[in-house]
Order: sequence, then structure tokens, then C-alpha cells
Amino acid sequence: MISQEELKTCTYNLLKERGITVQSIADIVMIIQQPYIPDLTMDECIESVQSVLEKRETQNAIITGIELDKLAEQKALSEPLQSIMTRDEALFGIDEILALSIVNLYGSIGFTNYGYIDKVKPGIIRHLDSKVDSHCNTFLDDLVGAVAAAAAGRIAHNMPNRVHHVIVEG
Amino acid sequence: MISQEELKTCTYNLLKERGITVQSIADIVMIIQQPYIPDLTMDECIESVQSVLEKRETQNAIITGIELDKLAEQKALSEPLQSIMTRDEALFGIDEILALSIVNLYGSIGFTNYGYIDKVKPGIIRHLDSKVDSHCNTFLDDLVGAVAAAAAGRIAHNMPNRVHHVIVEG
Amino acid sequence: MISQEELKTCTYNLLKERGITVQSIADIVMIIQQPYIPDLTMDECIESVQSVLEKRETQNAIITGIELDKLAEQKALSEPLQSIMTRDEALFGIDEILALSIVNLYGSIGFTNYGYIDKVKPGIIRHLDSKVDSHCNTFLDDLVGAVAAAAAGRIAHNMPNRVHHVIVEG
Amino acid sequence: MISQEELKTCTYNLLKERGITVQSIADIVMIIQQPYIPDLTMDECIESVQSVLEKRETQNAIITGIELDKLAEQKALSEPLQSIMTRDEALFGIDEILALSIVNLYGSIGFTNYGYIDKVKPGIIRHLDSKVDSHCNTFLDDLVGAVAAAAAGRIAHNMPNRVHHVIVEG
Repeated sequence: MISQEELKTCTYNLLKERGITVQSIADIVMIIQQPYIPDLTMDECIESVQSVLEKRETQNAIITGIELDKLAEQKALSEPLQSIMTRDEALFGIDEILALSIVNLYGSIGFTNYGYIDKVKPGIIRHLDSKVDSHCNTFLDDLVGAVAAAAAGRIAHNMPNRVHHVIVEG
Repeated sequence: MISQEELKTCTYNLLKERGITVQSIADIVMIIQQPYIPDLTMDECIESVQSVLEKRETQNAIITGIELDKLAEQKALSEPLQSIMTRDEALFGIDEILALSIVNLYGSIGFTNYGYIDKVKPGIIRHLDSKVDSHCNTFLDDLVGAVAAAAAGRIAHNMPNRVHHVIVEG
Repeated sequence: MISQEELKTCTYNLLKERGITVQSIADIVMIIQQPYIPDLTMDECIESVQSVLEKRETQNAIITGIELDKLAEQKALSEPLQSIMTRDEALFGIDEILALSIVNLYGSIGFTNYGYIDKVKPGIIRHLDSKVDSHCNTFLDDLVGAVAAAAAGRIAHNMPNRVHHVIVEG
Repeated sequence: MISQEELKTCTYNLLKERGITVQSIADIVMIIQQPYIPDLTMDECIESVQSVLEKRETQNAIITGIELDKLAEQKALSEPLQSIMTRDEALFGIDEILALSIVNLYGSIGFTNYGYIDKVKPGIIRHLDSKVDSHCNTFLDDLVGAVAAAAAGRIAHNMPNRVHHVIVEG
């Protein structure tokens, strides 16, 4: 059995290797949650991201998704999966399935955040989606969005008295 | 056993009674899907909403949710549920759970739409959320958003070659 | 905003009022988890049930589901929901949706337990399902099954080194 | 964009290559659904399995899961994913996540079947789980169980008047 510590180290290493720091995910949390909690601090965002990354389910989703991204870059997948991954086909859906398995752990509160992040692609997500280099980020952008969405939902859940009711401009 | 026809009639009647027409849901579908499918027609939006409303799971979620909204208006619920419903507490979550059971039927494709709708509250949703009258719409706004999200996802799924890749401004 | 303490008290009171003790749920956990963890103790089962009942999402699902059960007993629901609830129609599905929202909080590990409990109806669940009295338990049996399934999954998750690989006889 | 026809052919070919026929999945459907529908025919089971296999979401889950199984057999995965897959670790959970994405498409009705199948491992599932050869079936057994569970749920959904209320012996 892989130890929890080993899984966690591996998760952080993989994210770092793909250009994702805890700070870059916390930046997204701040962007989407500050309208509702005006006095939200960056330390609170970072702590919440770290907490989501502690969960074994989060770690397993990240490890599996990034492995598929890397195999796609190496052209090591069979067809038609190789082409689907390379083109990041909108109807593939397995990337969202893995992402939603992270969001699900925090009840329904993270779903709204996830959908919004996926549409407006704030912060590092927009960079991941822009395909400026040869990286395949089919899973990575959804996984990062899911961790940010879960971390934002977790904050709202833990600080209910600091949450304001706001309608975001679309 | 309640017949499918009876359930469907009841669903349409309840929506109408609460001020929701197929057209008002189709308007939301058009708002959120047209950026991706520029030549989308209103007839296609209406047909997709009707198709989502054909599903027994959709009907059962709507019938249950609107019943709870109406009981809350009549102050017929026990505490603390009565207060939670009247205030539409953000951490209640059961409204989103019912809504997501509709979205789920169409795979992961509707989740993004649902989250986005819930954040920006387009069309009739903004009216439902604004609490200008004595109505309790705790479940209704999420259910309408879910039907619209599912209908939009269904369109993207059925017309993959007409979908353009766009990043929405947040 | 309803306090977490108030919600918890209300959840325990409602369960007690409907004849459900923590012990009766822990009995189910023991039945389904002991084949995999032979040295499992009743104290561990009780502690895990209590932990699942601490979650706000669990509490909200229980409060909403039992309210609907009680309203059905009082014939206070509109048709066709009243008839669907009274007959515990297999295709209703909203009872399972609320139940699965509890199971979901623990990742995929509780799903298998939930399905198995729903089929074989161990312990108090069989009594709830047998309709020997005038109670409507349409939601209650699924909610109790979900709490037991989640508690069992949580145990397996927290004690991975004590879990044995077993195939249950069907 | 990969055509629906191409995806379907690929799905059937992959299942065949891994020793899974439509008949072997339909056998599981018959085992779990016949107690509830005594006059269920094998043709109905086969038709329902084929219908579940028509869905793009089902096809994408199967293609991705079997690819990971095959890469694990070839020792082509990075650590710790390679070891987790080879040992079919109970806490991995991503196999169930992909499986549940299939079951989800049919509402809550398939969940119970899925959990039961996963516990009692009827028919070909028991063979897949027994690891008699060098194959890695970490994803395959869950995917086959999910298709059978969804097909059984779909039958109950489409023939409500033929369903009897039964409690299975556990």
C-alpha cells in the first residue's frame, strides 16, 4: 500500500513539474471568492488549497490525470484516445469526471465555482488552456480548476458569517 | 404507479404556476450557448428544454422542489427547515443536490453551464433570485438553472461540429 | 443562519423520533464491514456514524428527507407527490439522490456499501422497509443506509492496513 | 473530431480484446434483474447493454479505463500509479469514479445495482477480479459492472409495471 505521505509528495512534485504552485491555485481562489468575502486573505486561500490537496481522492485524481497528459505528450496512447487527448475534445468528458470527483468531496458548494472557473478561466487556467507550447493539459486545467473550486467552497463553508450575497457580472 | 403523461402535465403546470415558461428557460439556453454556436436558433433551444423536461428524473426533482418552496411560503415546514428555506441559506445545499441530479443525466457536459448560470444568473433566474415578492424560490431558481444547463449541454453534445471554442469574459 | 450545534441537535432528535439510534446505524456498519475488518469494534462503528452525522450536508439531507416523510404521513403533500411518497415508488429516485449526497462526501468508497445495503436491507433498514405501521419511511430508509454506508467507507479509508480482500456471497 | 461510429467500433473491439462480450454483460443483467422481473428475457438484457454502450460517455470511460489497464500490464506507467494499478488498491477510487460516470447517466436507479454487483461479483466480474492471469483489470471489472448496472436500471425504468418488490438475501 502506498503511504499517504508518499502520495502527497508525488502530487506536489507532479504539479510543480507541470508549472502549478499552491500559490497559483490560491490566486484563483482569491479571484472567485473575494467578491463574496471582501476581507479574505491570501493565507486563508493557501491553507484551503493545501487542505484539499491533503485528500487521498484529490491526490489520486491528480496523479492519474497528469499521467494521461504526459502519455499524450509522448504520443504513448492508443488511438482514438491519443487524438482525443491531443485535441482536448470538448465531448471527451473524462477530464471533467475526474475534476468533479474532487469537487464532490465538499458537497454541492463547490460545483458553482467549478462551472464558473471552467467558463471564465481565471489566472493560471487561462494559460493552461491557451496551448502556447507542446504541453497537453487536457486533464491539468480541469484538475487545477477543481482544486480551486473545492478550496473556495471550503472557505465559504467554514466562514459562513463572512459571506456576502453577490451576483457576479457575466 | 403515476403515469409518465400525468407526471409531465403536472410538471408543466407547476412551472407555469410559478411563472416559468419553456420560452423563459430557452432564453437562458440561448444566452449561454450562442457564444459557442453562433447560428443557434430559438426553436433548437425550445426543443432541447422540452426534451430535458420529458425525463422522469427531471419531473420528480421539479415536483419535489416546488412542493418544498410552496410549503415554505405557507409556513408549513418544521423548524429549522422553515427558516433555512425562507432565507435561502447558502449552505443548505439540498436545492443544488436536486438540481445536479438533472444535470448529471447528461454527463459532465452540463456542469460547467450550471455553475456559470448560478453565478451570473441570466434571464428569469435573476428575477427568481431577487425576492421582489413573497415567493420562496429556494429550489425553483436552481431547478430552472439545471434544466437550462442540461438543455444547453445536450445541444453541444448533439451538434459537436457547430461548437466553437470560446473563453467567456468573467 | 442556523448554527451547526442547532442543526446537529435537530438531526439527532428527528432520528430518535423516527426510531433510529446511533447504535442501530452502527449495527449496520458492523454487519457490512466486519467481513473485511474481522477485528472491527462496535466503538469504532459508533464513532464513525457520529462523525458522518457531524457534517452539515448530512444534517440537511436528513432534516429535509424526514420532513417529507412526516408531511406524507399527514397527507399534507400535493398530488402526485403524496401518492408517490405513500407508495414509495421505485422510480421516484429523489430519496436516493438525497442519500447519495451523503455518500458522495466520502469519495467513491461508500457507493458499493450503499448499493449493497439497499439490496439486502440489513438490520433496522429491513424494519423500516417492511411498512408494518402507518409510518412513511420513503426517505428515512435511504438516509439511514447512506449514513451507514458512508461510516463503513470512512472506516475502510482510515484503517487501510486492517482491510482484507473478501468476496461477499450474494 | 472522432466520429460516434468510430468510437463505438473501438469500444466493442477493446471489450472483445479484453474477453468481454455483450452476452457476458447481459448475463450479469439477467442475474441481478430477474428476481425483480421474473419474465425478463435475454434479448431484453442484450438490447439494454447495447443501448448503454451507444452512449459517448460510456465509450469514453471504457476507452480510457482499458488504456490504463493495458499500460499497467506493459509497466508503462509512472510510480506510484504503476504500483497502485498493479495491486488494484482498494483506496485508489478512480476506477469507481469512471464507472459511476456511466451509472449516473441513468439517474439514481443504477447505483444500487452497481454497489451490489461490486460486492457479490456475479458472472464474468468474478473471473475478472480473480487475477488468474497476468492481466490488469483494475478498471475493466468496474466498467463492466457499471454497464451491467446501468442496463439493469434502464430495464426497470422502461418496464415499471413488470417490476416486483423483492428483498435479496445478503
